[in-house]
Amino acid sequence: MSTGAGELFRPLYREGGALRLLDQRLLPGDEVWLTLDEPEGVARAIRDMAVRGAPAIGVAAAYGAALSQRGPGTSSPRDRFDAARALLANSRPTAVNLFAALERMAERFEQLAASDAAVIERGLLEEADAIASEDIASCRRIGAAGAALLESGTTVLTHCNAGALATAGYGTALGVIRGAVAEGKSIRVLADETRPYLQGARLTAWELARDGIPVEILTDSMAGHFLSRGAVAAIVVGADRIAGNGDTANKIGTYTLGVLAKENGVPFYVAAPATTIDLACPDGAGIPIEERASSEVLSIGGRAIAPAGVTARHVAFDVTPARYITAIVTDEGICRAPYDASLAAAVERAASRRAAGAGSGAGSTYPL
Amino acid sequence: MSTGAGELFRPLYREGGALRLLDQRLLPGDEVWLTLDEPEGVARAIRDMAVRGAPAIGVAAAYGAALSQRGPGTSSPRDRFDAARALLANSRPTAVNLFAALERMAERFEQLAASDAAVIERGLLEEADAIASEDIASCRRIGAAGAALLESGTTVLTHCNAGALATAGYGTALGVIRGAVAEGKSIRVLADETRPYLQGARLTAWELARDGIPVEILTDSMAGHFLSRGAVAAIVVGADRIAGNGDTANKIGTYTLGVLAKENGVPFYVAAPATTIDLACPDGAGIPIEERASSEVLSIGGRAIAPAGVTARHVAFDVTPARYITAIVTDEGICRAPYDASLAAAVERAASRRAAGAGSGAGSTYPL
Repeated sequence: MSTGAGELFRPLYREGGALRLLDQRLLPGDEVWLTLDEPEGVARAIRDMAVRGAPAIGVAAAYGAALSQRGPGTSSPRDRFDAARALLANSRPTAVNLFAALERMAERFEQLAASDAAVIERGLLEEADAIASEDIASCRRIGAAGAALLESGTTVLTHCNAGALATAGYGTALGVIRGAVAEGKSIRVLADETRPYLQGARLTAWELARDGIPVEILTDSMAGHFLSRGAVAAIVVGADRIAGNGDTANKIGTYTLGVLAKENGVPFYVAAPATTIDLACPDGAGIPIEERASSEVLSIGGRAIAPAGVTARHVAFDVTPARYITAIVTDEGICRAPYDASLAAAVERAASRRAAGAGSGAGSTYPL
Repeated sequence: MSTGAGELFRPLYREGGALRLLDQRLLPGDEVWLTLDEPEGVARAIRDMAVRGAPAIGVAAAYGAALSQRGPGTSSPRDRFDAARALLANSRPTAVNLFAALERMAERFEQLAASDAAVIERGLLEEADAIASEDIASCRRIGAAGAALLESGTTVLTHCNAGALATAGYGTALGVIRGAVAEGKSIRVLADETRPYLQGARLTAWELARDGIPVEILTDSMAGHFLSRGAVAAIVVGADRIAGNGDTANKIGTYTLGVLAKENGVPFYVAAPATTIDLACPDGAGIPIEERASSEVLSIGGRAIAPAGVTARHVAFDVTPARYITAIVTDEGICRAPYDASLAAAVERAASRRAAGAGSGAGSTYPL
């Protein structure tokens, strides 16, 4: 399939009985792949951010749950599955995709529970494969739907990395940009560097440059200047969890972009698969916000940037109220206000799609 | 004088015939002092940001102009002065204090021009001393005026470094905080780290910790989150140039804070001496905005943070329109909208003060 944006890059995939995962902490300097064959390693990779991005975390967690059955063990398949699930569920709190993936793996486990250990293991690995394949297909649908929102010859601003590296491949926010480029549109990207982890400078710039899509890096504090000067036609970001009313948790700094977009009359789009919508959360107040270690702010590349003894806050996500969001681009179409109705409908369409595809074999519903 | 905030720290001062200047690029790791005895070295220190902060740049430029007369030379005092002035005027474009200081030194030169070379040199050095002393006195008046705006037991957010290190001593925005602390108020500070130079993490944290004022560092993208959660009672920032209508150029990221403050109903204060007001600029559109090298964004502490070949924008300042500014705290009182009138009045009071103090000897008008 021609995407106008190079060959599909998959930052995590199964190879035999193990998960191969690109260690994103070392990009763009080094491209190191981890081979993980037990749930503990996968949970650690999620917690320590070797893999990050809500959809990618979901896919990694699915493989982590599947790997619970690997090798000889003294405890029962159920005990092994439950232990892995608990471990993975505690790795990071904000992205709902992780919990959705574990829930789906648990459903599959129940279907398989009466079978031989080997059948359970194979079935779980295939289910994780299906989640990965469907995630890529979801991203492509997000890209196709969102492409219409971007005009050729314009500059789009994005934050953090909601790209191929944040998913099983192709990306959500960057999927929308790739979708527009695939339609032949010329798009320039301004990428917020996204402190403290610099996902924008390290990852978004890396994968867009790889695809030949023009990208320039900004410090996070510069976005407002470019918005106020009319240099940005649209903002597109990803999401870690979308509440039923449209309030959206995403990487810290997203709320600020929403406020700046509204103030400057620039459209602000969120791009995410329907699995990111959490109807159990009526609004953003119910979304848990992860606070991480102060040390992750106080040093860069091992070098201290602040005086000894001074502390930092490290809030990893923020919530952008729905009123700042022009539209939410999902794999089930574009949702607009009132979001209660449009998001619920998207979730329903996703459930129907899954039910319709369930009999046709893992990963085959949507071509890659 | 008890400031409630430790002994006065002076980041640049004269020692005999040379300027001693703390190299702020190496803080907080190393405290290295430069000894500069010619205009070229001072211009380089300004351009390369060994010294930064609008008032401190003005003081440094004044000393740079005075040092033009140092040592034996083949050209006339006037030629030497003019060459130094041109060199210094080209060091950085945005902060108006630099031009105001050079203008004042030029006036003093005209008064001295008919005298012996030694008299000219001594006169210029004393004028630079006066500018430095008056800057500290200005900061103290800013602090005393602004202290009333902050309530005890609250958290104040600041951006970049508008502290002792950005002035001849005491600070503007941090002067307001020091003024409140001197009145016995308990103030906690959230300091934006302020990429790309990290003046907040490196300098603001350093000087507040030194004074025992509680400070925590945020990445620039976190300010919005804390504002939206009601955790910030006020924002106080410095200024590099204030147009006649109140539009204010300050470190990149300040505009964003102004927008966030308005959106969340939090007061947004600018603190600066009246020399920062440029009545020749009717509004922010007339303020030149410096764009610096991409490389200063693309590496931190010598370590690349982005893929090779990718560029960055490095806009060093932005303009906050007056409508976002609750008040401008000057050494001539607190200015409020309509700013055209209040700022012009402050400039007039400053001129009267200078005229009244002109006969009483350099630096003696305001006690340190």
